[in-house]
Amino acid sequence: MKYHSAIIGAGSAGLTVAVGLAGLGKQVVVIEKNHVGGDCTNVGCIPSKLLIHLANDAGDLNSSEIFARVRAKRNELRDEEDEWIKNQENIDFIKGEAKFISNDSLEVQTGTKRKKIEAENIIIASGSSPIIIPIEGLPAERALTNESLFDLEDLPKHIAIVGAGVIGCEMAFAFNKLGSTVSLIDLAARILGPLEPEVAELILARLESIGVKVYTGAKGKIYDESTNTLVLDSNGTDISLENVDKVLLAIGRKANLDLDLEKAGIEFGRRGIPTNKVHETNMENIYAIGDVDDQASSAFTHSANAQGRRLAQKLAFPYLPIGREPTYPSAVFTNPEVSQVGLTLDNLQKKYHEKLIKTERFELSKTDRAFTQDLNEGFVLIHAIRLTGRIVSATIVAPNASEMIPILSYAVNNKVSMYKLSELVFPYPSLSESIKKAADSFKFASLANLKNELAIFLRYRLASPLNENL
Amino acid sequence: MKYHSAIIGAGSAGLTVAVGLAGLGKQVVVIEKNHVGGDCTNVGCIPSKLLIHLANDAGDLNSSEIFARVRAKRNELRDEEDEWIKNQENIDFIKGEAKFISNDSLEVQTGTKRKKIEAENIIIASGSSPIIIPIEGLPAERALTNESLFDLEDLPKHIAIVGAGVIGCEMAFAFNKLGSTVSLIDLAARILGPLEPEVAELILARLESIGVKVYTGAKGKIYDESTNTLVLDSNGTDISLENVDKVLLAIGRKANLDLDLEKAGIEFGRRGIPTNKVHETNMENIYAIGDVDDQASSAFTHSANAQGRRLAQKLAFPYLPIGREPTYPSAVFTNPEVSQVGLTLDNLQKKYHEKLIKTERFELSKTDRAFTQDLNEGFVLIHAIRLTGRIVSATIVAPNASEMIPILSYAVNNKVSMYKLSELVFPYPSLSESIKKAADSFKFASLANLKNELAIFLRYRLASPLNENL
Repeated sequence: MKYHSAIIGAGSAGLTVAVGLAGLGKQVVVIEKNHVGGDCTNVGCIPSKLLIHLANDAGDLNSSEIFARVRAKRNELRDEEDEWIKNQENIDFIKGEAKFISNDSLEVQTGTKRKKIEAENIIIASGSSPIIIPIEGLPAERALTNESLFDLEDLPKHIAIVGAGVIGCEMAFAFNKLGSTVSLIDLAARILGPLEPEVAELILARLESIGVKVYTGAKGKIYDESTNTLVLDSNGTDISLENVDKVLLAIGRKANLDLDLEKAGIEFGRRGIPTNKVHETNMENIYAIGDVDDQASSAFTHSANAQGRRLAQKLAFPYLPIGREPTYPSAVFTNPEVSQVGLTLDNLQKKYHEKLIKTERFELSKTDRAFTQDLNEGFVLIHAIRLTGRIVSATIVAPNASEMIPILSYAVNNKVSMYKLSELVFPYPSLSESIKKAADSFKFASLANLKNELAIFLRYRLASPLNENL
Repeated sequence: MKYHSAIIGAGSAGLTVAVGLAGLGKQVVVIEKNHVGGDCTNVGCIPSKLLIHLANDAGDLNSSEIFARVRAKRNELRDEEDEWIKNQENIDFIKGEAKFISNDSLEVQTGTKRKKIEAENIIIASGSSPIIIPIEGLPAERALTNESLFDLEDLPKHIAIVGAGVIGCEMAFAFNKLGSTVSLIDLAARILGPLEPEVAELILARLESIGVKVYTGAKGKIYDESTNTLVLDSNGTDISLENVDKVLLAIGRKANLDLDLEKAGIEFGRRGIPTNKVHETNMENIYAIGDVDDQASSAFTHSANAQGRRLAQKLAFPYLPIGREPTYPSAVFTNPEVSQVGLTLDNLQKKYHEKLIKTERFELSKTDRAFTQDLNEGFVLIHAIRLTGRIVSATIVAPNASEMIPILSYAVNNKVSMYKLSELVFPYPSLSESIKKAADSFKFASLANLKNELAIFLRYRLASPLNENL
């Protein structure tokens, strides 16, 4: 029997496309090497957000009980998902490791058993794994990644986190709250590289204010097990961190490509598998979605899910247009949270002429809601096209930024202007009012200076190759 | 000298129009009987949200210190606003009581001094006051309204709150948290009358679970000072509440109409001053905005502010179209919060044919964010027009509902459909995902049943007088 689709990976991307196709009556097979639910359920969003929540709201639990509770709840969800997929109509589930034999067949190894699978379409949703850069002298049991972090039984006394990206920063806040000494180390000159510099500045100040030591321009050099000392190379100078009992490697992710892709003729690069706008690889009827796709924009649970939905639609209704892939919002669960949609100013200025971008920043502390809840930090930052006011990207730093971003995500994806947004009434008192205030500020400044705004717009619109969307 | 505009009341409505006009170079006079900032700053949103915040996050403060801190912060803001208005260019500020002399002149009394003011436009933004229904035997010093509540020095042991509307419910949560025994009393058969019944049900359950006693179908009958007993008439039966030391009257609001309106020929009713879509009263060049307007939809700080902006635009640029008044969201700061935009189902069914409305309810507890933060209650409720999917109203009950409503407020005000909303990607994990899930559910159900949906739509669209917006 030849399946309609074989799906490699049962994470957010793979499950979504499987369920979508199965629901439309297509026979599919899903092959998963590890656990159903992928990284998100097992070693990603779910356990990390459980840990962050419990670190902030521990009640009577001590840290070991918190770790145990994170695992118990995670396992509860995992078991549900395990059960659930086995009972899905039109879905065969195989626990095993898939490799390509040809462009329409896979070999799946489960234990010592091998099985050949044939399918009209093959969907690669094999996800990603943490990048490991070994530190000399660091014993395996002291090195953690997101895959082993949630197996901790006891709180590290001093955890060194290598990599100050999203995972590194989130875990720095959580372990600080739990009571560990936390050192956060990044090779780059600043933390949270992919986010706006204003965000990095605020989060850095916050980390330092709670006692996290942050080392930028630094990397782990050597670990001395006899003294539990981690020596950093910080811009050429050695810095010794004492009594480090765990090191969390959160440097980045690499696509899971160990699938004999070359046997099917599938192209891939260092960052993953290149795809076109409808998720096709270079090979007909072979698709790649989620983390394994080489676009960074697809490396979220929600973007993997969205790609799964798009692909299910494409495969089931090939005659329906599938549309442009949306701009996905992102969320970082630091304290405060950060949520962003669209490019940072730096990248916008590469895409559009820099003079075409007008930025509004509004401090949450100027809202009455911040006044009533003693909130002194956070902001809304919106980049819009000069004159037209079209919102191209936005960042919110706020206690619930992930709940506040949808209106801006809608704006970016539907070409809503600052003028339009300034007409929207927000409930009072709310922090979201900042969004309106930023839009108001844009409107008043633009209207007061219309002639000049028009001149700049006309001049640089033509100076830029990217006129499509202005 | 004849002013461009005379504005009665320096609350949210009055200040906004004053600042708007003054900024455009118009000479205005603002007359305020009490404090600058109106109810919101002085006896409304600001002190109540300060109290709610501090009740939930008291730190080391005892309740008396909390009350003192609420006042100190409130006064800080009040003083700022007092100073600020005195330094505004083009604004004359008079502390005093205004009465109409004619349709273009006012008499303002400050102490024993009287002054005549003439203006081309007069804007009534005099706000509203709490309705008082006296309870026999209740001494004045035991009766509170929002105007005296924030002067409390000590925590009541047992506070009876008469009126289970927004203020009553918010204060029931706050005083319970502070440590008072709280009894909440309403004449109606349910609490939170203007909100969806599902909301009332959830908030009632929550109030009862924290120990607030709720008496519906009941009113205060008599207070016995010798025993501190408040006797309720509960559907004809007497119920005695023991040891009640304070009674908060939160029954409702009445428009402040003591302005000699008849001398200017201005019509008014029991609920306030009727106005047309551009805030004009029956008399030319006389306007009414904010709480004094007879529309309930304008009785929020944010709607008063929006009306002030609209009116400033209309007066300054009479040739510019002013547009339809938006549908304002509302927010209730109970625990969890409630936020609504548009009509309740009950009222929608009076406006449209009931078969035309399709309701989607999605429980927050089904989101992964709720799972990671142990949240078991709350929901998103969306009413949309069948088939077309146009979103006509929505309610959110969630810890930060007021921050989540803007996307739905945008949808209601800009005729966004459930289909469109289901295309929007929300960050994962967030409670806001519920909005998407509700939209997804609408979409899948409608597509699966298209023929039937179309038949119903066509049939009842024509059966209803309200085809304008479908």
